[in-house]
Amino acid sequence: MTDPADLAERVRGGDLRLHELEEHADPETAAAARRHLLETETDADLETIGDFSFSAGDADPNVENMIGGAQLPMGVAGPIPINENEEGGSGAAEGEYYLPLATSEGALVASVNRGCSVIRSAGGANARVTKSGMTRAPVFRVSGIAEAAEVVEWVEENTEALREAAEETTSHGELLDVTPYVVGDNVFLRFRFDSKDAMGMNMVTIATQAACDLIEDETTASLVALSGNLCSDKKPAAINAIEGRGRSVTADVTIPREVVEERLHTTPEAIAEANTRKNLIGSAKAGALGFNAHAANTVAAAFLATGQDAAQVVEGANAITTAEVKDGDLYASLSIASLEVGTVGGGTKLPTQTEALDVVGLRGGGDPPGSNADALAEVIATGALAGELSLLAALASRHLSSAHEELGR
Amino acid sequence: MTDPADLAERVRGGDLRLHELEEHADPETAAAARRHLLETETDADLETIGDFSFSAGDADPNVENMIGGAQLPMGVAGPIPINENEEGGSGAAEGEYYLPLATSEGALVASVNRGCSVIRSAGGANARVTKSGMTRAPVFRVSGIAEAAEVVEWVEENTEALREAAEETTSHGELLDVTPYVVGDNVFLRFRFDSKDAMGMNMVTIATQAACDLIEDETTASLVALSGNLCSDKKPAAINAIEGRGRSVTADVTIPREVVEERLHTTPEAIAEANTRKNLIGSAKAGALGFNAHAANTVAAAFLATGQDAAQVVEGANAITTAEVKDGDLYASLSIASLEVGTVGGGTKLPTQTEALDVVGLRGGGDPPGSNADALAEVIATGALAGELSLLAALASRHLSSAHEELGR
Amino acid sequence: MTDPADLAERVRGGDLRLHELEEHADPETAAAARRHLLETETDADLETIGDFSFSAGDADPNVENMIGGAQLPMGVAGPIPINENEEGGSGAAEGEYYLPLATSEGALVASVNRGCSVIRSAGGANARVTKSGMTRAPVFRVSGIAEAAEVVEWVEENTEALREAAEETTSHGELLDVTPYVVGDNVFLRFRFDSKDAMGMNMVTIATQAACDLIEDETTASLVALSGNLCSDKKPAAINAIEGRGRSVTADVTIPREVVEERLHTTPEAIAEANTRKNLIGSAKAGALGFNAHAANTVAAAFLATGQDAAQVVEGANAITTAEVKDGDLYASLSIASLEVGTVGGGTKLPTQTEALDVVGLRGGGDPPGSNADALAEVIATGALAGELSLLAALASRHLSSAHEELGR
Amino acid sequence: MTDPADLAERVRGGDLRLHELEEHADPETAAAARRHLLETETDADLETIGDFSFSAGDADPNVENMIGGAQLPMGVAGPIPINENEEGGSGAAEGEYYLPLATSEGALVASVNRGCSVIRSAGGANARVTKSGMTRAPVFRVSGIAEAAEVVEWVEENTEALREAAEETTSHGELLDVTPYVVGDNVFLRFRFDSKDAMGMNMVTIATQAACDLIEDETTASLVALSGNLCSDKKPAAINAIEGRGRSVTADVTIPREVVEERLHTTPEAIAEANTRKNLIGSAKAGALGFNAHAANTVAAAFLATGQDAAQVVEGANAITTAEVKDGDLYASLSIASLEVGTVGGGTKLPTQTEALDVVGLRGGGDPPGSNADALAEVIATGALAGELSLLAALASRHLSSAHEELGR
Repeated sequence: MTDPADLAERVRGGDLRLHELEEHADPETAAAARRHLLETETDADLETIGDFSFSAGDADPNVENMIGGAQLPMGVAGPIPINENEEGGSGAAEGEYYLPLATSEGALVASVNRGCSVIRSAGGANARVTKSGMTRAPVFRVSGIAEAAEVVEWVEENTEALREAAEETTSHGELLDVTPYVVGDNVFLRFRFDSKDAMGMNMVTIATQAACDLIEDETTASLVALSGNLCSDKKPAAINAIEGRGRSVTADVTIPREVVEERLHTTPEAIAEANTRKNLIGSAKAGALGFNAHAANTVAAAFLATGQDAAQVVEGANAITTAEVKDGDLYASLSIASLEVGTVGGGTKLPTQTEALDVVGLRGGGDPPGSNADALAEVIATGALAGELSLLAALASRHLSSAHEELGR
Repeated sequence: MTDPADLAERVRGGDLRLHELEEHADPETAAAARRHLLETETDADLETIGDFSFSAGDADPNVENMIGGAQLPMGVAGPIPINENEEGGSGAAEGEYYLPLATSEGALVASVNRGCSVIRSAGGANARVTKSGMTRAPVFRVSGIAEAAEVVEWVEENTEALREAAEETTSHGELLDVTPYVVGDNVFLRFRFDSKDAMGMNMVTIATQAACDLIEDETTASLVALSGNLCSDKKPAAINAIEGRGRSVTADVTIPREVVEERLHTTPEAIAEANTRKNLIGSAKAGALGFNAHAANTVAAAFLATGQDAAQVVEGANAITTAEVKDGDLYASLSIASLEVGTVGGGTKLPTQTEALDVVGLRGGGDPPGSNADALAEVIATGALAGELSLLAALASRHLSSAHEELGR
Repeated sequence: MTDPADLAERVRGGDLRLHELEEHADPETAAAARRHLLETETDADLETIGDFSFSAGDADPNVENMIGGAQLPMGVAGPIPINENEEGGSGAAEGEYYLPLATSEGALVASVNRGCSVIRSAGGANARVTKSGMTRAPVFRVSGIAEAAEVVEWVEENTEALREAAEETTSHGELLDVTPYVVGDNVFLRFRFDSKDAMGMNMVTIATQAACDLIEDETTASLVALSGNLCSDKKPAAINAIEGRGRSVTADVTIPREVVEERLHTTPEAIAEANTRKNLIGSAKAGALGFNAHAANTVAAAFLATGQDAAQVVEGANAITTAEVKDGDLYASLSIASLEVGTVGGGTKLPTQTEALDVVGLRGGGDPPGSNADALAEVIATGALAGELSLLAALASRHLSSAHEELGR
Repeated sequence: MTDPADLAERVRGGDLRLHELEEHADPETAAAARRHLLETETDADLETIGDFSFSAGDADPNVENMIGGAQLPMGVAGPIPINENEEGGSGAAEGEYYLPLATSEGALVASVNRGCSVIRSAGGANARVTKSGMTRAPVFRVSGIAEAAEVVEWVEENTEALREAAEETTSHGELLDVTPYVVGDNVFLRFRFDSKDAMGMNMVTIATQAACDLIEDETTASLVALSGNLCSDKKPAAINAIEGRGRSVTADVTIPREVVEERLHTTPEAIAEANTRKNLIGSAKAGALGFNAHAANTVAAAFLATGQDAAQVVEGANAITTAEVKDGDLYASLSIASLEVGTVGGGTKLPTQTEALDVVGLRGGGDPPGSNADALAEVIATGALAGELSLLAALASRHLSSAHEELGR
C-alpha cells in the first residue's frame, strides 16, 4: 500500500524520480504524491488541481507527471443555423449547432453568441471545407543538388510505392500527394494525407516514417528529421496559410441591411470600411498571415472545449475575413486556411471534451469517414465568423455613434 | 426558488433568452439550466462539465452563457535551475522552478521534463527578458496623405499629452512610446505600454482609447478601429516577431558533450545539424515566422495551466531556436519574440490557475512591479527550450542510430 | 518632312499629344522631338540619351514615348565551369560559361568574378532546375462559398477543357496544372504553364484569358482581374518563395579547405558561421523571404545584361544560401525559388542584350525547347552563388583577421 | 602601345588575368581586349556592346572587368502635377514633373503615362515622405543571453558615443537611432542614418563599421558580419515593409467620378472592387509583402533611368495600393515602405542617368540637403501610382464591358 506522502518523501530523498511514480503506485496515488511533493517544495496548496473529474488512468495517454486537472469555465454559443437552405450540393454540417467554448477571456462568449444571433436573424450561414489534408514533411540530406534532383525524380516516379508503404501503417489514412522542395543539399518532401475524422498528426507521422524508410532503402538520401518544418506544425508559416493544413474552411453569411442596422446598430458600409482598414490594410502593413479581427479567440475556445490540440491554435489563426456591401446588404466571410480538428483520438476522449462534442453532435467517426471532422470545422469557422461580425460591428457602431456626436456638436 | 429544468423550459419556449438566465437565477443554477437545455436539445450528457471546482459566480468575469467547466490533465516538469550561477547582472527568475503544464498531448510533459533534467545536469539555464511592452494600434482615417503627415507630426509633438491622457486611466501602466505607420489615408499608431505584472490588453486598450479621444479632439483624424491590427493581437504577424509584444525573452544553456552523449544519446554536431536543416532552413522555405521545433506546445500547456490567454499562443510561437557546437559542447537557445504573460488579472484568478502560479512561485504582483511576469516569461521560455532540446535530440539520436545501422550492414 | 523642333512645338502648343508623335514622324524623329521638348521644358541636355545604338523602330515593342536609351556599364565574370563532371543525369548547362553583368554598383563584378575563380579552383559547380512553370492567377467573384465550392469542383473536373482552351492560343506553351484557392466569395485559380524558352508572361496571360472565358461561359463565376496577385508577379510573396515561379534553380559547390584558406583567406568554419548567423538567423528575425547575402545583385546585373524583366528581380531575390563544413571542406549552395528568365522574346531581342546572350551561348530557342532558358537559369544561379561565396568570405576573413589581432593583444 | 587583340591573346595564354587588363592598358582598350577575348571564345559579336556613350574611365567606380555598355530604351511619362494645391505644409516635390523610364517591357510607359494624364485631369496628386533613414545592421556573437543583455544595455547607454564614432566618418550622414534585436547568442544592432541626398549604403556601411569598432573595443561582443540581414538590403523582408528603409513615401489622388468614367471607362466602384479582391485579398492569400498591382515596374524603370541600384527594386516592391469610393469619387493611394533613392553618388553620375535626373529636375544635392532625394521619391511614387491606376482601370473596364455584354445577352 502506498501513501502519497511517503512516495513524495522518496522522490525528495532521491530514491525515486518524479516520472517513476506510476511504477510504484496507481495513477491517482502517483498524482497525489506529486501534489504532496509540490506542496512541500513550494508554497502552493493544490486542492483544486487535485479535484478533477476524469480518471487519472484514462488520462495516461494525454499527460505524464500528472498532478491533477486544469479547469477552465465553459460557455455555449448558438444555436447557429448552417447550410440549411441549400439547393445544390451542400457542406458537411447541416442544421442548427450549439458551440461550446472554454475560455477565461470575459466577453468572448457573449461576442460570439451575439454574432450567432445575428446570423440566425439573417437566415443562417453557409460553410464549406474547400481543401483537406494533414501533412508531414521530413527533411533528407543528400550530397548535393545533383543527387537532390535524382532523389526528387525517384520520389515522383515511385509515389505509388510510397503510398503502399505509408498506408500499410494505417487503417484509415490515405496518402493524397507528396510535394518535393529542394534547398541546396536538403530535400523536403511534404506528404499530405486524408486522415478522415482524426486530426491525424500521429497517424500521418507513423505513415510518413514508413515512406521515409523506403526512400532511405532505395535512394542515397538520409533522413535528418521526420519533421523538416515544411509540414508546418504549430509554427506560423505561409505554407499553411497558402496551401492549407488540416481543413481549409470558409463560412459566410449575407445579412440584410435592416438586421445590421437594428441588431448591430451600424451599417453594412461602416462594417466593410472597418474590415478593409483594419483586417486587410492593417494586417498587410503588419506583415501578417492573419487578416482577421480575433478568429483565434473562437478557435482557441472551441479547441479547448472539444479536445483539440491547443498549440494548433497557431495555424487556426491563418484566417482572412472579408466584408462588403452587396445590393445594400452585408456580405461577410471568414476563411481559415489551416484548421486542424478531429472528432476521434487525442483529447477528444477526455470526459468534458467528449460531452462538448456531444453538444455539437459530432463525436466520433462520421459517415462517411471524415464528415464529422469536416462538419466540426464548418461549425467552428461559422462560430469564428460570428465573433468577427460582433467585433467589427462594435468598432463600427462606436465609430458611428462618435460620428453622430460630432454632427450634434 | 428556481429550478434549472423550469428555466430551461422557459428558454426553449422563447420566454427567456439563453444569456438572460443569470438575471433570474444564481450563477450555478443558471449554468445548470443551460446544461439541462443542451441535454434536451442534443444527445449530450453534461455530467462532467457540470462537475467543476470553481465558483460559477467567481468565473463571471471570465465567461458568459456558462455551462460548467472544461478539464484538462495537468502535469509538471522540473525543477529547472535558472540564472543561478550569474556573476554580473541577472534575470528576473533566479533559482529552481517547477513548471505546471496542462495538455492533452501525450509525451509532451515527458519531453519537456527530460529536457529539464538535461538542463539540470548542465548546471542550469540562463534567461533574460530583453524587451517588454504591451501594444495597441488604433487606425484613423484622414482625408489623404497631406493630412496624414500633419497628424503624424502632431502626434510626435504631443507624445507627452498623449501619455498624460493614457496614464490617467491606469494606476500601473506606463506609456513607453507611440510609433506611427502611414498607408494612404490610414494612420496607424502603435502604442506600447509597460503593463507591469499584467498581460495588459485591457489596461492598454482603455488607456489607448483615452489617447485616441485626445487625437480626435485635437486633429482632423477619425478613429475607425481601436485595434487596427498593427498591435497585433492573436494573429501571426511579422511586426510581433520582429519588434516584440508582451515579453521578448531568451533562454539558453551550454550542455557539456558528455551530457549530450550520455543523456541524449547523440552528439552536439548531430543536434546542431538537425536544428539548421529543420528549424532554420526548413522554416525559411516554409515562409515561417517560427523557426523552432515545437515551442508552441510548451507555451500552450504553460498558458493553460497558469491562466494565460490561450489565443495568444499564436504570438508565443514566434520563436527562434539556435544550436551550435562551442568548444565541443552544445550551445542551444530559444528566443520567443512575443510572449504575452501576466501573474495578475484575467484567467490567473481562477482556482487551478492560481494554484499553478503558486507552484511556479510567481502569483500576483512582483517586487518591483513587473518582475513576476518577467520571471514567468523566463521560466516558460526555459521550459520551451527544454522541449526543443528533447525533440531535437530525439530526431538526432534516431538519425544516429540509423547511421549506426547503416555502418553495420 | 518633319522637324523635331516643330513637332516639339506642336506638343507644347497642345496640338499634338506626347504619345502621338509616332503617328506624325518616324520613330527616330519622334524620339528626337521628345528630347527637344524635354530640353525646352527642363534644364536637361539629352545628348547622351539620344546617342543610342539600337533602332528606335525595333525598340517599338519594348517602350512607348521613347526619348532614347539608358546606358549602363557592362562587365563580365567567368568562366564558370558548370555540370562538367557529372556521372549520372545532368543539368541543362554543361561546360564553361561567361556571365555578362550590367551594373552601376562598384565591386559587384569583381566580387562575382572572384567567386567564379574559386569555383574553378574547386573543379566547378553543379546546378539544376528543380521545378519550372510560369503562372497567372485570375480572381473570380462568386455569390458566396457555396458557389465557390461548385466552381472549384467544375474546374477540377474540367481541367482538360481548360487546357485545350488555353493551349489553342499558343504554339509553345503547355498548361501544367491549375490550383484553386478560395477566400470568401473570391475564387483564385493559379494556372501554371511550361513556357519553354520564353519567360512567358505574355503567352501565359493570353492563354489564361482563354481559359477564363470558358470558365465564365460554363460557370456562374465572374472574372474580376486576370491577375489576382496569387501569380504573383513582381511582388514579394511567399507563394513564389515556396512553390516557385519561372525556374526553381539550385547551384552548389564543394570547395576544398585549402582553396578556402589560400584563396579566400578564411576557413570553412568561419564561412559557415557567418552564413548561419547572417543569412539564416538574421533573415529569420527580419521576417524575410530571402535568406541570402546579396543574390539580387547578381540576378539584377545578369537580367539587365541579357534582356530579362528588371522588375522580376523582386522574385529573383527569393533565395536561400546554405554553407556547411563537410569532411573539412566547404559545401555551399544557393537555391533561387523563382527565377524568371527567357532566351527568346521581350528584351532579349535588343542588340546589346542579344550580344550578351551570345556571350553566354544561350540565345534563342533551345533544343529541346526550354533547355536554353533552363541553362541560363543555372548559369545565373551559379554566378549568384559565386557572389555569395565572395561576400561571405570577405565577412569571415575580416572577422578572422580581427580574431588574430585579438590574440595578438 | 597596346593592341586589344594582343592583350586578349595574353589572357587566353594565361599570361594575364581578365581583371588585370587595366594595369596594362587604358580603360577603353582594356574593355576592347575583353570583347575581343569573348568574341574569340564564344560565337558573340560585341559590336553594339562596344558602342557606348560614356567614358570607360569614368565608369571605373561602377564596374569591373568592363566590356562595354548595356542599352535599354528610355521613354518618358508626364508631366505629373504633385503637391501643387497645398494649403498647409507641403511635400518635397512641388510642381509638374516628367518621369524618364528605362524598360524593355512594352506597354509600361504607355500605362504610366495614361495614369499621369488622368492625375492631371484630376488636378494633380499629393505625395509625402513619411519616414526616412538608411540602415545597416551588423550581427555580433556573444557568449550567451546573459552577455547579450549586457551588450544591449551598454549600447543603449552609449548611443551618444556610437553617434560620435559613426559620424566622424562622414560629412553628411547623421545617426538617427540604433535598435537592438537579440536571438540567442546573436546581437543585431540596426543603425539608421539620415543620408541626405545619397541613397547612402556606402556612407552608412563605413559609419557603422566605426561604431562596431567601438563596440568591440568596449564590450565583449565580436562582430561576425557588418551586415546581419536585419538591414535588410536587397532581400524581401518584413522589417523593411513595416519599419521602412530609405524613404517611406505615399502618393495619393482623388479622381472625380466623371474623369474615371470618361477617361478610364469604368467606375470608382469597379476600381475599388478590383483593388480589394486583387491587391488586398489576393496578396493576403499569397503571403505577400507587396499589396499592389505592379509598382515594381515603375520603380524599376525609374531606377534604371535615374541611376539607382537595380537590385533595390526588391525593397521598392514593398508597397500597398488602396482604392475607395469617397463621396462618389475615387480616392487612390500608393504607399511604398522602402524606396531607396539618391540624387548624388552611385549610378547617378553616369551620363544618361545624369541627363535623366535633369529631366526630373532633381540632380545633385538638394537645398536643404535631402530634399532632392525626398522629391525624387515622391515623383517615383506618384508615377507608380499612375501605373496602378492605369492597370486597375484596365482590369475594371474589361470587367465592366463584360458585364455589359452579359446584360445584353
